[in-house]
Amino acid sequence: MIKSKTKKNYIEKLLASKRFDKVKNKFKNLHASEAAELIKEIEPEFQLIVYRLLHKKFAAKIFSYFEPSLQEFFISSLRTKEIIDLLAEIEPDDRTSLFEELPEEIASPLLKLLNPNDLKQLKKIFSYPKESVGRVMTPEFISVNSEWTAKETIDYIREKANDKETIDVIYCTDNEGRLVREIPLSNLILAKSDQKIKDIHVKPLVILSAFEDQEKAVYVIKKYNRTALPVVDPQSRLVGIVTIDDLMDIQEEETTEDFHKFGGVLSGKGDSVFMGNILDASVLFLYKHRIFWLMLLIFVNIFSGAAIARFEDVIARSLVLVLFLPLLIDSGGNAGSQAAILMVRALGTGDVKIKDWFKLIKRELIISLLLGITMAFGAGAIGAIRGGQQIALVVGISMILIVVSGSLIGMSLPFIFTKLKRDPASASGPLVTSIADISGVIIYFSIANFIL
Amino acid sequence: MIKSKTKKNYIEKLLASKRFDKVKNKFKNLHASEAAELIKEIEPEFQLIVYRLLHKKFAAKIFSYFEPSLQEFFISSLRTKEIIDLLAEIEPDDRTSLFEELPEEIASPLLKLLNPNDLKQLKKIFSYPKESVGRVMTPEFISVNSEWTAKETIDYIREKANDKETIDVIYCTDNEGRLVREIPLSNLILAKSDQKIKDIHVKPLVILSAFEDQEKAVYVIKKYNRTALPVVDPQSRLVGIVTIDDLMDIQEEETTEDFHKFGGVLSGKGDSVFMGNILDASVLFLYKHRIFWLMLLIFVNIFSGAAIARFEDVIARSLVLVLFLPLLIDSGGNAGSQAAILMVRALGTGDVKIKDWFKLIKRELIISLLLGITMAFGAGAIGAIRGGQQIALVVGISMILIVVSGSLIGMSLPFIFTKLKRDPASASGPLVTSIADISGVIIYFSIANFIL
Repeated sequence: MIKSKTKKNYIEKLLASKRFDKVKNKFKNLHASEAAELIKEIEPEFQLIVYRLLHKKFAAKIFSYFEPSLQEFFISSLRTKEIIDLLAEIEPDDRTSLFEELPEEIASPLLKLLNPNDLKQLKKIFSYPKESVGRVMTPEFISVNSEWTAKETIDYIREKANDKETIDVIYCTDNEGRLVREIPLSNLILAKSDQKIKDIHVKPLVILSAFEDQEKAVYVIKKYNRTALPVVDPQSRLVGIVTIDDLMDIQEEETTEDFHKFGGVLSGKGDSVFMGNILDASVLFLYKHRIFWLMLLIFVNIFSGAAIARFEDVIARSLVLVLFLPLLIDSGGNAGSQAAILMVRALGTGDVKIKDWFKLIKRELIISLLLGITMAFGAGAIGAIRGGQQIALVVGISMILIVVSGSLIGMSLPFIFTKLKRDPASASGPLVTSIADISGVIIYFSIANFIL
Repeated sequence: MIKSKTKKNYIEKLLASKRFDKVKNKFKNLHASEAAELIKEIEPEFQLIVYRLLHKKFAAKIFSYFEPSLQEFFISSLRTKEIIDLLAEIEPDDRTSLFEELPEEIASPLLKLLNPNDLKQLKKIFSYPKESVGRVMTPEFISVNSEWTAKETIDYIREKANDKETIDVIYCTDNEGRLVREIPLSNLILAKSDQKIKDIHVKPLVILSAFEDQEKAVYVIKKYNRTALPVVDPQSRLVGIVTIDDLMDIQEEETTEDFHKFGGVLSGKGDSVFMGNILDASVLFLYKHRIFWLMLLIFVNIFSGAAIARFEDVIARSLVLVLFLPLLIDSGGNAGSQAAILMVRALGTGDVKIKDWFKLIKRELIISLLLGITMAFGAGAIGAIRGGQQIALVVGISMILIVVSGSLIGMSLPFIFTKLKRDPASASGPLVTSIADISGVIIYFSIANFIL
């Protein structure tokens, strides 16, 4: 941290004394992500000055690393000419996310500043559904004819490729633009010069549809160990590629989404679930995301209260039962959370499918029985000390049944949500706990009622 | 699913009627991961037969996709000669994981079957700490002299590279083997034939140390958008590379680990936290992983019980208080879990650093107050219906304080664990809930004692 603080101070000092060439030089050796971090840190009054000192292309690259709020600041501060340059230089997939993230009233006027080709491209991309492969692909790729030789292809690449394009994989298309095969650049290099590229031995094609969910792309690229995947439209025409670095970011976002859902942090609305850097989130934004589940769970908990009310005389008879209430309902909730998180993650990575439910229920029954019996000894011992033999018996038996029922609830909820076409992560820890509580209260006091 | 079932049946039928050529053909068009899945599905009696039908290289590739248990089965069933071939053909990083995952008694005898070079390589890799970059790198890369021209370099690659090596990036080293620069293959192709590679304009080097944590590698490759990163030893000599596909798998494993830790699913021991596919885990394995936290939490819960015991006469005076116990302590735990998961994830992705704690505490105080006040209205209303005005007051005030204290506990625990050099994800939902419970019980009954 000290290092970056020094850098920030140094840059600010240079700017204050107008030594712009030195600033330029300082930025020249930075990676775009480092430069973006540095700009984020320096005082707002200097941010625009620095940004204007940078080479157009580099500035556009940096821009895509900014948080949406900083992007808005720049868009509203830059001159029209500068915005036109920015929009022309920024990479197509970053341009898509820019227009996705900017508020409507800022994005709309920008559309007029796009050059006709970029506008057409953008409209095409926005015709694909949100969070689809089409939205994250880049439409810039090299496509060649499969009758060409390796040498012809390499010559073509050297002539046509610009530095923005991914040329790690070259795509062969037919006269209608339909994808025929792909040749990794490395295979092309290792091939004989006069070998036709249709004769180069390559791995089988793995293709994505532009309409598929972006999560599918993450799954596929991992399964087949590729660094880029071709994307086709319904007519099998190659329309873009997705690259592994973008998919890695998506994987991180999707995982964060799962984490937040499981933690019960979610507005309840479908959109904008990924909240970016939590540090930048406002109080109101976080409040809105968190209150939904908390209030919902209050109403679930009414049932626990109602269940307790039915057993008031048992409780009046032996008040000591209340001492074990948190212990028992927590244990059910804890075992349930464990089971739920194992399923949420396994369903999320694709390790487990919905058809495995029954098999897993049977196993969970045995595991939770073992867990419950072990825990019954611990809880029973405490029960014996505090309330004597009979209380120990009530607490012990309740513990076993509560842990089993909590576990079965925890492991089933993610499947039920999947069945209902919801995200399994919606089976959040708090939800599992609250539902397990109701059954816990009923089990505990019923057994107490029976034995005491 | 139906499709894969048909494939399985079809292969089994072919095998039963000894039409091995057809089986071979069937497998020829599959990606290694698909072939591995198919082999996993067919009956054990056929698995070995199929495996033996495959080309050596392909068989070795498939092998690395198997679960450790299946790998063990093959190792113990294959003939010595076959194992020697397998160990020679398997890629170095897959060989490392094989030896890491096999039980000692199976791995040891295999060492004698390695050829001297591979053995030396393996020993070197095992000299790096567990979960370090050194353990996941592959020592196979192309290194060249930076005085060479683009053409000389390409010719060299064409002559030397074998199909196992990653040639997407070429590395320049000096006479002592120290890394000087890296040239992506794409830059090499676009350069003029007679350009010296030291003059090709490339991005600044990003280097990993073999001793760094593998998580660092994931972070770096994402930050700099590379597809491979060079790894050096303490003398700055290039010793290997890590590729993005392996890092993507590591990212997934690390995330799963975080999920499981947060869910309180962990044996408590440091090693073997990643459990592979949950479907293949045994009852005993899962029992051992889950019981540790559950038992620990029972003992934390003793304190909640003890706290309640201190308030027995308040409870005896107004039994209706018990009805709201699950609601109140759950709300504290829920708000705490939300705060904890936001922090666990943000610390995990690097969005939040330990220095942000104080800033976040202040914000959390405001958010949780807002949450608490909102929830107090809900809970107070239920309180009024079930117990009258005074109970409503007790429940309402308790709710605010419990939600605030639960949230502060939840958001602080991940930081405390980080400070103690533990994984922030160890601040599991169940732990947060159990600690929030103790404070919840004390707050609730103290307020009840005061007002009633």
